[in-house]
Amino acid sequence: MLIPVDDVRSTATDVLLHAGVSQPNAEILVRSLVEAELRGFPSHGLLRLPRVVERIHNKVTDGTTTGRHTWTTDAYLSVDGERGIGPVVAQHALTAISERARSTGIALASIANNNHIGMLALYAEDIARTGQVIIGFTTSEALVHPWGGRKAMVGTNPVMIGVPAQPHPFVMDMATSLVAMGKIHDYAHRGEALPDRWALDADGNPTRDAEAAKAGAIAPFGGAKGYALGLAFEVLVASLTGTATGRDVAGTLDSTQPCNKGDVFIVAEPTGPVEAISHYLKDIRETEPSDPAHPVLVPGDRALHTREAAAANGIDVAPDVWKRILSLTACHGRSVVAG
Amino acid sequence: MLIPVDDVRSTATDVLLHAGVSQPNAEILVRSLVEAELRGFPSHGLLRLPRVVERIHNKVTDGTTTGRHTWTTDAYLSVDGERGIGPVVAQHALTAISERARSTGIALASIANNNHIGMLALYAEDIARTGQVIIGFTTSEALVHPWGGRKAMVGTNPVMIGVPAQPHPFVMDMATSLVAMGKIHDYAHRGEALPDRWALDADGNPTRDAEAAKAGAIAPFGGAKGYALGLAFEVLVASLTGTATGRDVAGTLDSTQPCNKGDVFIVAEPTGPVEAISHYLKDIRETEPSDPAHPVLVPGDRALHTREAAAANGIDVAPDVWKRILSLTACHGRSVVAG
Repeated sequence: MLIPVDDVRSTATDVLLHAGVSQPNAEILVRSLVEAELRGFPSHGLLRLPRVVERIHNKVTDGTTTGRHTWTTDAYLSVDGERGIGPVVAQHALTAISERARSTGIALASIANNNHIGMLALYAEDIARTGQVIIGFTTSEALVHPWGGRKAMVGTNPVMIGVPAQPHPFVMDMATSLVAMGKIHDYAHRGEALPDRWALDADGNPTRDAEAAKAGAIAPFGGAKGYALGLAFEVLVASLTGTATGRDVAGTLDSTQPCNKGDVFIVAEPTGPVEAISHYLKDIRETEPSDPAHPVLVPGDRALHTREAAAANGIDVAPDVWKRILSLTACHGRSVVAG
Repeated sequence: MLIPVDDVRSTATDVLLHAGVSQPNAEILVRSLVEAELRGFPSHGLLRLPRVVERIHNKVTDGTTTGRHTWTTDAYLSVDGERGIGPVVAQHALTAISERARSTGIALASIANNNHIGMLALYAEDIARTGQVIIGFTTSEALVHPWGGRKAMVGTNPVMIGVPAQPHPFVMDMATSLVAMGKIHDYAHRGEALPDRWALDADGNPTRDAEAAKAGAIAPFGGAKGYALGLAFEVLVASLTGTATGRDVAGTLDSTQPCNKGDVFIVAEPTGPVEAISHYLKDIRETEPSDPAHPVLVPGDRALHTREAAAANGIDVAPDVWKRILSLTACHGRSVVAG
């Protein structure tokens, strides 16, 4: 179901304003959701909009705050998210440390009491476009099993890195799980068997049954190394923010619990020339591929390519998701004509 | 060939003093090499000592400098390694930013013109023991092929994270390559076939011939994700330090070329309580394992366990490596009695 981008934007904004979200906050969240859709990551797109509205209704998300900022030092921003909308709190924190890093060289935002911050790549791209380097982490509910373990004890803990480059910034954004829990749900929905080694069931045994995996745990990517990395990000974020870890993390997937994970952003000024980075990335893109039909990719390239097509053609929204969103607009029950 | 730790220390120190290294610098390097041996990472141990001596002889390593420090801002330390001994320059930079971060909350060291800095875990452990959090990166010569590519264009680019915890700090230190090039050399030495998918030959074709792989490329760990991570670290470090990338990086493996890779350390003050981190890591260690014979490990645990045994029993040094080291002492040719 292809919907023109502007229609998606205005409808999603309507929904949020109707739910009591302030206009500037609605714009930030809509941008995050729409950009995720455009780049081919629907798991971080419109699917999340109804849940935000439910969370506002349940008073575990506040649509009006932008987070309370306390500069612990000149370069260390401590943010109380005040249960705000994730991308709103994140963007305000990032804007503050990005501006600060111009004079301090490096600045860190330690964010607690914030909701799910959506697609990380967008923050990386925004900061790198201003000519700065960024590293970002956010934790999640425990969905990943430790390497050699039987139950989920580690978040999907993504990492994001942005570096200025031409013709567009270098942007890397990836979870440390082998796959997203959303993908397991997709397999369950289609009744398809999971590939081997993706997941364990609730008893900690390997399973290819997607339904069983939903109640179990996903494997870390890259075996023991990916587990080490995901666990390191979990304790790094918890140490820098004082937020929850492991099975104590809640509120990133449901509509009722306060969200107690943490986010950390570090922004720094580059020393080296952008040209050198751009030249290296060009060499990578032009290196001979194993399979001539599949050129070597630089992280972020595919998403930008996908975005171009989607921006022209419209966003492919699942009909049930769009129907649910329309039901949340102010005009619902009056004169809505669905796309 | 088991050599008592004290003998290894004094012999290695002799070698360095004889090569013109200053006493305090020799102590730093010897500690790095010995700790790598004790923790079971001989690739970062004594094997590297003769090469350091050769590099000093060839004037691509200076045994007396500790690096030139310039504070670009209060929190941003720019270090010209002045071709110093890697761990010496690294440790001096770390001590400076660790002290600075006590007041600034976060501080970064951007290091260029420095030699190979040895085992990263030790820096992480040192800083975490002082109650601070650390993230560290260093680049290397191109040994890893891009995912879907045919030749080495990315360094093994390790990442290190240290976080305060009890009974000992959390320390994660890993390369983004599937295996170390040292391991490929081991297979070649023993004439054993490599496991599938570890490496490509010089023409970019998959090979299980370790000799062929030495001239080719190692796979990134974890497929496309590990490649994305390694590449991100490469451009992050290059951007923050202005150092070389890809196939332009030299001097990390040989004895004659100036070393032009970069190192980046970020030290920050934690916000959350150490107890929470320690408790979470204890839960991880005690979680039910898939195989009762193999408890779930936390990164760094095995190395510390290995260290205990080795510290008591002595260091198991390859006879040819020890012989070569003895030949570099001041007394060589006079009255040396090998252990």
